[in-house]
Amino acid sequence: RNVHKHVFSVLLALCRTPKGTWPWGKNKNFVMEMRWHEKFSIIFPDFTKGSGLLMSENKSNRYTSGAFHPFTHVYTQSDVMRVIEHARMRGIRVIPEFDSPGHTQSWGKGQPNLLTPCYKGDVPSGSFGPVDPTVDTTYKFMESLLKEVKFVFPDSYVHLGGDEVSFACWQSNPNVRTFMEKMGFGKDFTKLESFYMESIMNMTAALNRTSVVWQDVFDYHERIPQDTVLEIWKGETYQAELSRMTKAGHRVLLSAPWYINHISYGQDWRNSYAVQPQNFSGTEEQKKLVIGGEVAMWGEYVDATNLNPRLWPRACAAAERLWSDEEKTMNADLAFPRLEKFRCELLRRGIQAEPLFVGHCKHEYDGL
Amino acid sequence: RNVHKHVFSVLLALCRTPKGTWPWGKNKNFVMEMRWHEKFSIIFPDFTKGSGLLMSENKSNRYTSGAFHPFTHVYTQSDVMRVIEHARMRGIRVIPEFDSPGHTQSWGKGQPNLLTPCYKGDVPSGSFGPVDPTVDTTYKFMESLLKEVKFVFPDSYVHLGGDEVSFACWQSNPNVRTFMEKMGFGKDFTKLESFYMESIMNMTAALNRTSVVWQDVFDYHERIPQDTVLEIWKGETYQAELSRMTKAGHRVLLSAPWYINHISYGQDWRNSYAVQPQNFSGTEEQKKLVIGGEVAMWGEYVDATNLNPRLWPRACAAAERLWSDEEKTMNADLAFPRLEKFRCELLRRGIQAEPLFVGHCKHEYDGL
Repeated sequence: RNVHKHVFSVLLALCRTPKGTWPWGKNKNFVMEMRWHEKFSIIFPDFTKGSGLLMSENKSNRYTSGAFHPFTHVYTQSDVMRVIEHARMRGIRVIPEFDSPGHTQSWGKGQPNLLTPCYKGDVPSGSFGPVDPTVDTTYKFMESLLKEVKFVFPDSYVHLGGDEVSFACWQSNPNVRTFMEKMGFGKDFTKLESFYMESIMNMTAALNRTSVVWQDVFDYHERIPQDTVLEIWKGETYQAELSRMTKAGHRVLLSAPWYINHISYGQDWRNSYAVQPQNFSGTEEQKKLVIGGEVAMWGEYVDATNLNPRLWPRACAAAERLWSDEEKTMNADLAFPRLEKFRCELLRRGIQAEPLFVGHCKHEYDGL
Repeated sequence: RNVHKHVFSVLLALCRTPKGTWPWGKNKNFVMEMRWHEKFSIIFPDFTKGSGLLMSENKSNRYTSGAFHPFTHVYTQSDVMRVIEHARMRGIRVIPEFDSPGHTQSWGKGQPNLLTPCYKGDVPSGSFGPVDPTVDTTYKFMESLLKEVKFVFPDSYVHLGGDEVSFACWQSNPNVRTFMEKMGFGKDFTKLESFYMESIMNMTAALNRTSVVWQDVFDYHERIPQDTVLEIWKGETYQAELSRMTKAGHRVLLSAPWYINHISYGQDWRNSYAVQPQNFSGTEEQKKLVIGGEVAMWGEYVDATNLNPRLWPRACAAAERLWSDEEKTMNADLAFPRLEKFRCELLRRGIQAEPLFVGHCKHEYDGL
């Protein structure tokens, strides 16, 4: 079964963007990052976990076979360029995520031999696992993909993913096991994942791009290039993780407390104000390495029908926490009227931002 | 502080109604009831907890003073008639709820002396509590309101509310305490509430209408008119409550397990399939008294920006549970493709129904 998520209309997304003031929508495909020091925002469109594949104009089959439909359910290069330009005019950078070696089922549809064939006993089961890190063709493919990414995305960062890799399929495959032996990895598949990630981080560096990777890569493999930015998505222990990562000298993005696709009843935006990204055990130098946070709206349960009301104004709360003086914005009760006013402003501009609580907007009376 | 909820555009609601097949939207203002025996649906627009007040054309101040705005944030009689007619053409009945004695803060704005003045020590505090059940003017007002309701709503049922009455304000008021003494109620304010509810249920009967009330009224006061329909909203103990109410010979509506305004992450529509409204301790005769269920989408966090995606297709799951053979629809996994297909049908008709999970709709390829 393909793990496609939802495809978003780029045009819809663009039309729905509040102009100039706030960061742009995100979801499984579009994930937004917001830095507080510089007060600008970055979008992470995730083209790989999702249904939308970046379509290379001249090699379309290769990238579009995994899409729900090769004409209607892909993002073309010109779609992407429109997004980047629209964002650029508003001071927003676009950083794509191409998440491997896991979350790549849709890639496998267009790229034979990219994914690891899973085995049942001595025979292939017919299903596929993560990218196969044991064959040269994988690295050739990744290099050509990253070159194309560099061509399409001007930003100096690229997110390489690296999260949630299941080892069961690798373990079932005799070629992978042979490779493990040859490399002296024993039974430790985290070493195999690290080997793969190190290769694509090096490729990325050779293309003069800086890698961002999910925390899994650091958790498995502490010796990763110093300038790689690490991103935290696991909620339970993020303060300890911040401490460890910055101690190792890495810059860090914090996303765990802002997974706002995890909805709950009531005013859950209040949680955003309780987050203190620099409140962990470490030196002042370490604190400075926490360069920002990211609001995530993963798209398992979100598409164009509910993206805007689910995202706004809940993302605004995270934005205020990241962009404003923490001391002055800790109190969620005091934040409430500010957010309420801003939500009315979004409505007035045509963004379907959901209500924070009972009430109404003053502009509803305008002209009466 | 006024406890106004959100006002819905009647026009929007009407335009967004799926035609002919499914029950119509609901929320704090519009709550939908679905009966499974008769396979028709009923809407409960709740005009009293909410911001929208039924506007009497010739006595407008009286009803509109509690609205956010007397022109833009009210439902007029002709709005209501359009809703009723639109619903009628689709086999849907509209039953209004006028919830008292609690949830009436907005009524107090237009109707002096209707609400109980709360006291702080020996002096009025300036705030108001539930309807004042100790003065004649209250009953005169309720009678004229119910007469108007009868004129506007043709259905034979009317929902009188009766839930969540706080006694603190009544207790603080010296006139109420004197009345309690005179009536021999002691310190038991549930008796005072029962006295009030009994009066308005009798009024309703005299107007040839059948009352629906929330479970609170039964919980406080078991001797209520036999033909009154009781509705269950408290989630924890609804099976025991079903048992008690039907043992007392009352017809019952079950809403507790379908409070779908209480959102959570993931496929919470699955819960609807686990509900067995007639699975409680009682005779076959008692089971027959459970005449239906109601999906509730109370509007504290819902308005026109998010009503449709939050309601659909989640309400469809409850509809199937209530309208289809329970034995044949217990399995939520088997229900998934049915719901998914129906959700695509809603999308095709222009209803912004949110996704059930990752995926796409076949009609997105039509004509390609």
